[in-house]
Amino acid sequence: MTRIFDDPAEFADDQLAGFLDLYADRVRGVHGGVVSHRGGQPQVAVVIGGGSGHYPAFCGTVGPGLATGAVVGNIFTSPSAAQAYSVGKAADQGRGVIFSFGNYAGDNINFGIAAERLRAEGIDARIVVVTDDVASADDEDQRRGIAGDFTVFKAMGAAAAQGLGIDDVERIGRAANAATRTLGVAFSGCTMPGEGEPLFSVPEGHLGLGLGIHGEPGIRDVPMLPARELAELLVDEVLKNAPAGAGSRVGTILNGLGTTKYEELFLLWGHVAKRLREAGLEIVDPEVGELVTSLDMGGCSLTLMWLNDELHPLWRADAYTPAYRKAGAPLAALRAPTADELAEAQAVVTAPEAGEAGRRLAGTVRSALAAIEATIREHEHELGRIDAVAGDGDHGRGMLKGITAATARVAAVGADADPGGGWLLQQAGQAWAERAGGTSGVLWGAALEALGRRLGDTAEAYPASEVAAGVREFASTIQQLGGARPGDKTLLDSLLPFVDELERRVAGGEELAPAWSAAAQVATERAQQTAELRPKVGRARPLAEKSVGTPDAGAISMGLVVTAVGSVLKAVGSGVEEDA
Amino acid sequence: MTRIFDDPAEFADDQLAGFLDLYADRVRGVHGGVVSHRGGQPQVAVVIGGGSGHYPAFCGTVGPGLATGAVVGNIFTSPSAAQAYSVGKAADQGRGVIFSFGNYAGDNINFGIAAERLRAEGIDARIVVVTDDVASADDEDQRRGIAGDFTVFKAMGAAAAQGLGIDDVERIGRAANAATRTLGVAFSGCTMPGEGEPLFSVPEGHLGLGLGIHGEPGIRDVPMLPARELAELLVDEVLKNAPAGAGSRVGTILNGLGTTKYEELFLLWGHVAKRLREAGLEIVDPEVGELVTSLDMGGCSLTLMWLNDELHPLWRADAYTPAYRKAGAPLAALRAPTADELAEAQAVVTAPEAGEAGRRLAGTVRSALAAIEATIREHEHELGRIDAVAGDGDHGRGMLKGITAATARVAAVGADADPGGGWLLQQAGQAWAERAGGTSGVLWGAALEALGRRLGDTAEAYPASEVAAGVREFASTIQQLGGARPGDKTLLDSLLPFVDELERRVAGGEELAPAWSAAAQVATERAQQTAELRPKVGRARPLAEKSVGTPDAGAISMGLVVTAVGSVLKAVGSGVEEDA
Repeated sequence: MTRIFDDPAEFADDQLAGFLDLYADRVRGVHGGVVSHRGGQPQVAVVIGGGSGHYPAFCGTVGPGLATGAVVGNIFTSPSAAQAYSVGKAADQGRGVIFSFGNYAGDNINFGIAAERLRAEGIDARIVVVTDDVASADDEDQRRGIAGDFTVFKAMGAAAAQGLGIDDVERIGRAANAATRTLGVAFSGCTMPGEGEPLFSVPEGHLGLGLGIHGEPGIRDVPMLPARELAELLVDEVLKNAPAGAGSRVGTILNGLGTTKYEELFLLWGHVAKRLREAGLEIVDPEVGELVTSLDMGGCSLTLMWLNDELHPLWRADAYTPAYRKAGAPLAALRAPTADELAEAQAVVTAPEAGEAGRRLAGTVRSALAAIEATIREHEHELGRIDAVAGDGDHGRGMLKGITAATARVAAVGADADPGGGWLLQQAGQAWAERAGGTSGVLWGAALEALGRRLGDTAEAYPASEVAAGVREFASTIQQLGGARPGDKTLLDSLLPFVDELERRVAGGEELAPAWSAAAQVATERAQQTAELRPKVGRARPLAEKSVGTPDAGAISMGLVVTAVGSVLKAVGSGVEEDA
Repeated sequence: MTRIFDDPAEFADDQLAGFLDLYADRVRGVHGGVVSHRGGQPQVAVVIGGGSGHYPAFCGTVGPGLATGAVVGNIFTSPSAAQAYSVGKAADQGRGVIFSFGNYAGDNINFGIAAERLRAEGIDARIVVVTDDVASADDEDQRRGIAGDFTVFKAMGAAAAQGLGIDDVERIGRAANAATRTLGVAFSGCTMPGEGEPLFSVPEGHLGLGLGIHGEPGIRDVPMLPARELAELLVDEVLKNAPAGAGSRVGTILNGLGTTKYEELFLLWGHVAKRLREAGLEIVDPEVGELVTSLDMGGCSLTLMWLNDELHPLWRADAYTPAYRKAGAPLAALRAPTADELAEAQAVVTAPEAGEAGRRLAGTVRSALAAIEATIREHEHELGRIDAVAGDGDHGRGMLKGITAATARVAAVGADADPGGGWLLQQAGQAWAERAGGTSGVLWGAALEALGRRLGDTAEAYPASEVAAGVREFASTIQQLGGARPGDKTLLDSLLPFVDELERRVAGGEELAPAWSAAAQVATERAQQTAELRPKVGRARPLAEKSVGTPDAGAISMGLVVTAVGSVLKAVGSGVEEDA
């Protein structure tokens, strides 16, 4: 949703004023748009343009090696003929003007009138229309221009910067357009400044195939796809529409529409690149990011420009504009890593020999870890929701990452290794910390390691008192490393009462399983009571007020974990403390 | 909302794989993150990091002149100590490692353990924590790190690239942090991959003051502000928290959190820059864009780094990373525009002399334009909604822009000019086309101009037959320029039946006002009937199927306009056609 504006009707002008203030050292504002400061030699002026709402298209790609000027219309609206004429005239350096823009009726009319007016004044003016959107029409001339705008502008901008004449730059622009194909998908619509609702919406669980970049919905709604299948759809459909005589080198753009973020695009890129290579294509200087947006629309598009020997160096050429900067020199100064640098030490993990009690303990450890994983998986979303009230909402996911890594590591230990439970716990702790990261990850990991070290693998037996002492070690590790104190609204407010209760009961002669279960009940109650507390450490601290009334997610998950372990101890009977 | 993923739990790893594929020519993946290919001389390794979900933080800013490596944790989760150690070790070039990250408990613990492990192996390892968020705590050491991460990383990266030793780079990092202050606001929460709901939401019509970058809600919800007031809030609060001894030069970042788009940021920047200059500050190399994001969160933050003579050149220094590229050379080769280039021709507009009937016609034209503006304003949103079904939803706004410009131009003509109605219509048409842009803008503008030319200012009278002929001219202009035919689902499907009916009635001797009203009734009906048509030209064509069942927005607005003009003609009685 577009949130920042004064008078919505003035949005396009107001944003342009800010842009011109920001880049006053390299562009100047003229009536109707933006013109680049000039370089040394006069060049053919490549003047691009269209409506606002597409940044960095169009004014963000004005500068050396790319466009000479950009005409800036209202949001999603063609600029007027007077605007296009004004920018064209200001951008002209005596070598003529090429207007280039996506194929829309308003742009065709307005840029057409502007070109006629320039010609009437003796300025050579040409037009190169971009028609890359394969979803918009079967007839290539009828297609809309979407993210393929960029490849066409880039080719012409590089050609003009190299000093080519207007005939050549125009010819190259047409060749670039003929070599460019795009297909896009929409996930969600964009909202015009001042409006409360998006221009369109995609049905829940669907994507709109064949997006437009002016808030037009997709041409057809299809069920949402996992990333790999989405990549296949995009690649396969674009390849199906390859131009006649297409070669094997492709300049590539995976373009985000606005709210489809970089990390999503990278993830998708991994699949797209693989599919393109499987199709025998060589990917040249791929661009993954936002080059042609549509306000805050969700979606992405894949553009391929098949490169011949003329387009190849133009696509790779340097450019320096507000939003798009490319330079070969800094990369040429880097060297690829050596074999030594690439070789990473692989720690060899072997289990030390364990005694019989230690090997029996291993079974209990495996069962306990499985039970923890089950309960965390069951409560993942609930833990996330609790954490999101005054935190970052990652607690459920982080805990699941940690315990899953722990159970996977333990599962990976072969049956012939026949390890002890203490060593297994240490392995589980290392995997947990490694994989879960974050505060809770390192605390849980270190605590499990400490518990495992304390229990060891060679004891003749593991009496309840020894288990209780191990659990105390677990808690002390968290206290020491995390630096929190009781009452700070952390997992300690559940864990410490648990250990106290367990120690008290075990010291009183109670068996481990019932003592543990009773202590787990205390832990669960005390976890709930953290709702009354104010956080004093951690990420929730700045949000202390919002936190009151909601329990601490770490304390809640601690209660879940000890409860699950209690059930395992009950099930295995006196398996742990036998021989006591 | 995050839409692209395979297994949500593997999102962070999967996106990193795509990133590494994309930038394989400049970075390499190591266990736990990313390391830059090396340049010529060994340098101090600046290793940054934190959770994923913040791109370009952190791996997007690895490269010459910025970070040497980045540790990549799970989404919004500190990387593990083992990850930080691994990246630190791989990044070390024999001159030591500085870990730098935002101040969060998990990062402090994990990077701290990693630094200890490096030191145990004889690698000099230091830590510089970023604490820029003024909203998060009064005590500067307790503050969170948000977008000010970037200024601190940039200063250290530039210092390391210049070959400074680890003591100096560390000192500069601490100085940069001490000189950096940030305040942010949240508009909407972000959604974790695989989740259906955002981590938090800001109450309707509010913003969250003091945002966190891990999906934490703002510290306090306040009513949403227009852009100018939002800029004042951000600037004033950051300046209130200026460090002791702050000078007058500030490196500045206006950072978008993810879905607050560039054009919004530029608009806000215009106000921010003004306010900063009013406060006597010199803005140095401002950055407006996305440097530290939070998935698809809506919001922005303002960061100032007060520059002393040491920090100033470091902030301005070149860098070349995947997401942040800066180079002085391309700009140095540009020259500022000359006075001639800056001088733009200002057309002087004077009204030609008009006859008495022409001056009376002017009154009717002014009333008619005012009535058109009123009806378009009333129906702006409805027209936008209709247009959005298979178009870009800009029709209501575009029409309003056009008619508002027309009435403003006409109003600006002084009373002493005493112009004729024909000339006024031409002025209105030029203003409409100029300001509204787009297809409908240029068509309406040219049509009004044609009507005005036909009517002129010097006729002895304007009989109904002459008005009808002018309206035919209006319609022919649109037909010729737009290239559409009847039945193509455009405004012609309302306009042409209107003109036919008007001509028929006038030819039959009917007076203008009743003939016009009856024709307007036909126009309105025929506009509604366009719902049955399939679009054959314009932006709606690719979405022909979706369009069926909804009338054409341009035909509907044509019906509204002629109806409004009909009311004016009725009210002024026979004012137009008198003397017939």
